[in-house]
Amino acid sequence: MKLATLKTGAPGHARDGRLVVVSDDLKSCADAAAAAPTLQAALDDWDAAAPKLRAIAEALNADPSGAGAPFDQSAALSPLPRAYQWADGSAYVNHVELVRKARGAEMPDSFWTDPLMYQGGSDAFLAPRAPIPMADDETWGIDLEGEVAVITGDVPMGCDRETAAAAIRLVMLVNDVSLRGLIPGELAKGFGFFQSKPSSAFSPVAVTPDALGEAWGGGKLHLPLLVDVNGAPFGRANAGVDMTFDFPTLIAHAARTRPLGAGAIIGSGTVSNKLDGGPGKPVSEGGAGYSCIAEIRMIETIANGKPSTSFLRFGDRVRIWMEDASGQSIFGEIDQEVIRYSGP
Amino acid sequence: MKLATLKTGAPGHARDGRLVVVSDDLKSCADAAAAAPTLQAALDDWDAAAPKLRAIAEALNADPSGAGAPFDQSAALSPLPRAYQWADGSAYVNHVELVRKARGAEMPDSFWTDPLMYQGGSDAFLAPRAPIPMADDETWGIDLEGEVAVITGDVPMGCDRETAAAAIRLVMLVNDVSLRGLIPGELAKGFGFFQSKPSSAFSPVAVTPDALGEAWGGGKLHLPLLVDVNGAPFGRANAGVDMTFDFPTLIAHAARTRPLGAGAIIGSGTVSNKLDGGPGKPVSEGGAGYSCIAEIRMIETIANGKPSTSFLRFGDRVRIWMEDASGQSIFGEIDQEVIRYSGP
Repeated sequence: MKLATLKTGAPGHARDGRLVVVSDDLKSCADAAAAAPTLQAALDDWDAAAPKLRAIAEALNADPSGAGAPFDQSAALSPLPRAYQWADGSAYVNHVELVRKARGAEMPDSFWTDPLMYQGGSDAFLAPRAPIPMADDETWGIDLEGEVAVITGDVPMGCDRETAAAAIRLVMLVNDVSLRGLIPGELAKGFGFFQSKPSSAFSPVAVTPDALGEAWGGGKLHLPLLVDVNGAPFGRANAGVDMTFDFPTLIAHAARTRPLGAGAIIGSGTVSNKLDGGPGKPVSEGGAGYSCIAEIRMIETIANGKPSTSFLRFGDRVRIWMEDASGQSIFGEIDQEVIRYSGP
Repeated sequence: MKLATLKTGAPGHARDGRLVVVSDDLKSCADAAAAAPTLQAALDDWDAAAPKLRAIAEALNADPSGAGAPFDQSAALSPLPRAYQWADGSAYVNHVELVRKARGAEMPDSFWTDPLMYQGGSDAFLAPRAPIPMADDETWGIDLEGEVAVITGDVPMGCDRETAAAAIRLVMLVNDVSLRGLIPGELAKGFGFFQSKPSSAFSPVAVTPDALGEAWGGGKLHLPLLVDVNGAPFGRANAGVDMTFDFPTLIAHAARTRPLGAGAIIGSGTVSNKLDGGPGKPVSEGGAGYSCIAEIRMIETIANGKPSTSFLRFGDRVRIWMEDASGQSIFGEIDQEVIRYSGP
């Protein structure tokens, strides 16, 4: 089953949009109001809403032109336009090791067993096709981060991996926009990211794990994450490879000392593959490439003493998506341009 | 105007409760459904809801017994039982300086001009009279943190202090529960707090700034924050004193690189007063006392080389409230017992 949230001008609903069921081929959609008005409402009462949503999905996939309207990805908001929680892990420890190596620091061994996770802002996500407005493209170091994320149901405090796994409701993609120029100063203060993590954008469509077929297994999504920058292939890293902590482990980590409410979003962190035990190669050289610019800059720094690839500038474009074995887009495409923000 | 959220068994509304207007003396309350079903709904459309809520408040205060029902604080949830954002500053820099001093570290001068702020979890707040369930009271170092917080309307990205000040909708108190035993390991990882910050609880009542009269001024709340531990006075620090960053400054800081959505909660950090330029004295010695146990332990460490006051154990009780000049409770009381959590 695939779900999306469409923009709506309806009074009182503009912030949370309108829930629709999307056909498996992403071409059609059907109103889901009979099941739940919004995705958060569906998640709040999933056991009641899910069977109704599945019935709508079955009818839609059986007869897309009859039961549905055309699905326009550019009319979609992030599946949860605002959420009660966005917690982002750093499950591809290879990426973390590279960050440290580039600045000549050792990574503690515990990073291979104890997940890194930060609490992100979740009150105002960008739409998947909305521009990324930023006030500064010279010193802020605007970067993309291509990731996979899951949306959970209620997760009890202190639960085990199995309970966490059973709480996974939907899977989607994320562009976790990061401001590399603000990160060192902020992390030095000791309280984690804040201004260095502006609004993220999620894929137009969120998908139940069962609809991912064999691509979903062991709490991971086993497909390449496709990232283009300005129309050129930038990343093709497989999200199921080198993921040290699977989603159930990340969820259980997040829920160790508090419960997670339905609709919590848990991210994988930047997808990153280790190639032949060494640094990753660009896609143009047959490598898996990168899911963020910081990573290629780190590899350049390790090789040449300094980075040569620039962070994003105004006018640059980022596209993030994933395809099934037949080349069909699964989640729709995040496609965003960085633009100048000149103030409120 | 004073607002609260009552528990409700109504299907589909259990998570967000039911909005009521509370009389100024906290004795009565009136249903607010005619204005908005929940506090989040009121904040989403404040310009439309606020006049209706004010009309209900006027009728209630004019004739509490006629227009209202008795207000039972123990039936209240946190005003926003779940929120789209909880960002907590550390505005009482004195507190931060003490933390550093206790571990023999210098505090950077920039901490006096650049606010510290962390992103907290906001999907599952505790009710103000709910117990604090924790799995470990020996090594986790369970602590209270008595704070003031504001709830904002929409705040545009990159706004100035004046715009931020105008976006303050409501003021309330917080117990920002902290696990001191988990903080050092978590901060050492560099990604900020996560497991060390379990669910917070807010005061039963949230109050508009105008209803605070002269106690609200300059973006600060000028009254002592009353904290009792196990029935004994523990903290009497004035929230308007030694607050280096006022709320508009904290809000503008949070909104530097992203907008804040209506219903964002911004906290002050642990209230802390500097006494005569030296370490604070206990309430029993005529001092302002402390709004968290970590602070008295730091002062003990500076004086004696080691702390002597214990963190909270199962069965310990924390009470946090604030009174106006006539001794009337303004926000109601947070009153919580720490209890053993034995798993889901």
